[in-house]
Amino acid sequence: MNDADTVRDSSGAPDPLDLDDFRRNGHQLIDWIAAYLEGLESRPVRESVEPGDVRAKLPEAAPESPEPFEAMLADLDDIVVPGLAHWQHPGWFAYFPAMSSPAAILGELAAAGLGVQGMLWSTSPAVTEVESHVLDWLVDLTGVPQAWKTTGPGGGVLQMSASDSTHTALVVARDQTRDRTRAPAEEMVVYASSQAHSSIEKGARVAGYGHVRLIAVDPVFALDPLALEAAVNDDLAAGLTPAFVCAAVGTTGTTAVDPVRTTGEIARRHGMWLHVDAAYAGAAMICPEFRHHQDGLELADSYTFNAHKWMATNFDCSIFWVADRKPLIETLSILPPYLRDSASETGAVIDYRDWHVPLGRRFRALKLWFVLRSFGAQGLRSMIRTSASQARELAEWLDADPRFEVVAPTPFALVSFRHAAGDDATRALAEAINASGSSYVTPSELDNRPFIRVSIGSTWTREHHVTRLRDLIDRVG
Amino acid sequence: MNDADTVRDSSGAPDPLDLDDFRRNGHQLIDWIAAYLEGLESRPVRESVEPGDVRAKLPEAAPESPEPFEAMLADLDDIVVPGLAHWQHPGWFAYFPAMSSPAAILGELAAAGLGVQGMLWSTSPAVTEVESHVLDWLVDLTGVPQAWKTTGPGGGVLQMSASDSTHTALVVARDQTRDRTRAPAEEMVVYASSQAHSSIEKGARVAGYGHVRLIAVDPVFALDPLALEAAVNDDLAAGLTPAFVCAAVGTTGTTAVDPVRTTGEIARRHGMWLHVDAAYAGAAMICPEFRHHQDGLELADSYTFNAHKWMATNFDCSIFWVADRKPLIETLSILPPYLRDSASETGAVIDYRDWHVPLGRRFRALKLWFVLRSFGAQGLRSMIRTSASQARELAEWLDADPRFEVVAPTPFALVSFRHAAGDDATRALAEAINASGSSYVTPSELDNRPFIRVSIGSTWTREHHVTRLRDLIDRVG
Repeated sequence: MNDADTVRDSSGAPDPLDLDDFRRNGHQLIDWIAAYLEGLESRPVRESVEPGDVRAKLPEAAPESPEPFEAMLADLDDIVVPGLAHWQHPGWFAYFPAMSSPAAILGELAAAGLGVQGMLWSTSPAVTEVESHVLDWLVDLTGVPQAWKTTGPGGGVLQMSASDSTHTALVVARDQTRDRTRAPAEEMVVYASSQAHSSIEKGARVAGYGHVRLIAVDPVFALDPLALEAAVNDDLAAGLTPAFVCAAVGTTGTTAVDPVRTTGEIARRHGMWLHVDAAYAGAAMICPEFRHHQDGLELADSYTFNAHKWMATNFDCSIFWVADRKPLIETLSILPPYLRDSASETGAVIDYRDWHVPLGRRFRALKLWFVLRSFGAQGLRSMIRTSASQARELAEWLDADPRFEVVAPTPFALVSFRHAAGDDATRALAEAINASGSSYVTPSELDNRPFIRVSIGSTWTREHHVTRLRDLIDRVG
Repeated sequence: MNDADTVRDSSGAPDPLDLDDFRRNGHQLIDWIAAYLEGLESRPVRESVEPGDVRAKLPEAAPESPEPFEAMLADLDDIVVPGLAHWQHPGWFAYFPAMSSPAAILGELAAAGLGVQGMLWSTSPAVTEVESHVLDWLVDLTGVPQAWKTTGPGGGVLQMSASDSTHTALVVARDQTRDRTRAPAEEMVVYASSQAHSSIEKGARVAGYGHVRLIAVDPVFALDPLALEAAVNDDLAAGLTPAFVCAAVGTTGTTAVDPVRTTGEIARRHGMWLHVDAAYAGAAMICPEFRHHQDGLELADSYTFNAHKWMATNFDCSIFWVADRKPLIETLSILPPYLRDSASETGAVIDYRDWHVPLGRRFRALKLWFVLRSFGAQGLRSMIRTSASQARELAEWLDADPRFEVVAPTPFALVSFRHAAGDDATRALAEAINASGSSYVTPSELDNRPFIRVSIGSTWTREHHVTRLRDLIDRVG
């Protein structure tokens, strides 16, 4: 099975299918990754690179003959690494953390090594059953409604990103609304706060909705339910059809928390779909003390959170739960002859191809399973609590210093602040932090005024990295 | 950086962040994967497993404390492997091959190890530039129009699956058609042959199109252009708006080839978007002798092929090319403050978040880059040619035997045949092959009659595996 005459080059070039080479190369790459992670701190968080720099180092044409793995490994050092922002750097405080961990990396590797397709239960039962099981574990771990288990009327599925999960929810809601009201999508309305993630607006546009209303927020940047109710009534009066509302638990801008229960009650009253976007903060719910932020989930039709943000699992691993899987499957199921299957036809199994847009799917649940086991629930809780408490301490320190203004609460592990001396000072401070090379933050805007987002919780960030950032702010500020 | 006090368990449990453990575990897993691939032939292609078997072996709840990696490795053997269909088995002739290779596995590992996000150019320039560059290489390697290079008006992007690529094309076409005609999506029509992949119908439904016409095919299962023209005219007469037509180069059922040029001419005449679905056969175009099958590509607006089918790259790695990237970006670009970026604003860079539904993206180009370099173009051509010639030989052998009927041409590496003794004999033959454990095929249907798909081209399939399948067909038949 290891002969590869058909691809072996007569010149004695490496055989791309030699499994002893694979062992040797794989060991080298594992060591390379460990050294990369260990060495991150000696690099700037974001490498200095101009448009075209990376491509300029790449050959004009693909090689005709096989190259040895050593050439690829060398190019990781010479071409790839100098062209990255190092998301796993301990000084990474930008965007949200894109946490990874040794267990996640190995889970991804195992999935790639197995190379199986989980589009149907029958095309590799373990892919589906491990996924269902691990997502049911997470129902218990995060305290979301029991009905969301795959053993109940709902169920969970892994998608690539929260954008995909939200888009899927929008498509199902659109079809449900059309069946109920006969309204065309062009007359349907989607609601979310002005602080909602761009994926709501993008998903609504992709799904063909005619209208998106970005609703006013209260002083802590949470959706104002009175403004929502008023917008719904205005749209009804104009002959439009309210169809979908998104409540964010932890917005991207400032991790504001929309009132899920009140939003859900408005949704129920008007027959709208309630989607909860907890892309970032959902991971925190493994700690019971955060769950009050999402009181009212029993009113939700769908929910998404990204294990690839704050749960030590590398991208892509977005969890999508629905309270009722029937409308989902109704909208997304297509049954050509080459996908017919006796196990599917009994209804005894889940075929995840009917739970999202793509047909094929790799074994992503493996890395989530490995992460949950490698850390244990305790380890993950401790990780969440540590970063949340580091964030609270930083926020308190900023709050106590008259040079700075904390612009939003810190319910999770994101600190939002600006310089009290004005917008130029805020911009200059963000630039100075990012130019330091040791810490990296995201400059953003609220009400057309700049502020700085400090997102704490990267896998390798320790207390002293947060302290170093604080000292830097102190010094530059 | 390697201290992990916050997650270390006081009981002396393993530290999930210890990088020496990662090295040790990683080496073990690499060896495990090599042994898995070497040992596949001693396993049945598809394990015998009933619904619930896998879950029954999993604990009720997630562990509270960290588990050692050895426990996960043991569960790969005890729980996962006995619950799989082994898509990398040399006797895999089912569906299409989901080829993987050592270089692809290592590319996926490297991407997971780096753990970077390529949503914007600036969030890790190398992710975007390697992707653009490698897809431009593929333009030359496969002979598709030069205008599809990212250095031209078009460009390529990696998506998860052909379903995602096709859905993206459908969304852009819908918005283009709406801007041009003011017609609502509910009045727009999508055309594809009756043999088109289910992703066309699913994508059209997801994108909100009101109508999908599955057009009659000719005796070799290719789209009949006269029937297409007639359907378009009927729809126009009924006041509907023709918007999108898909030409398949290599259908899923029998790898039939629709007439791309004629279909494109009809599309041009009626202002429709022409999408070419070469999900499977696109890989073959690295061999010039197959390119006549897609004559007329200069009329196409978009094109998709899956490197994760017949190009030795593990799922997911679907290539999506557009002839003009402007409408794509117009439809999919949303710009919230936290994603604003100076490099993006100059227009000097590509931000791939605007080229598909998801925002986040991992470094998938790495595995494609590794595969192209590990095999070299010659190696990939040789792999394609070998499987195509094995398929032709099998088809000729079946054709010469009066017990069997080859039901469709074999332009690539799929053989479609049935038993001459009737449908029951065909079904029984498929069952006998799949029960053998050594070979696995997909039973399918054409015109409500069963036939057997034999898809040749799995990475580890050699001449003698095809011979063994032929002998099995001979014996059972």
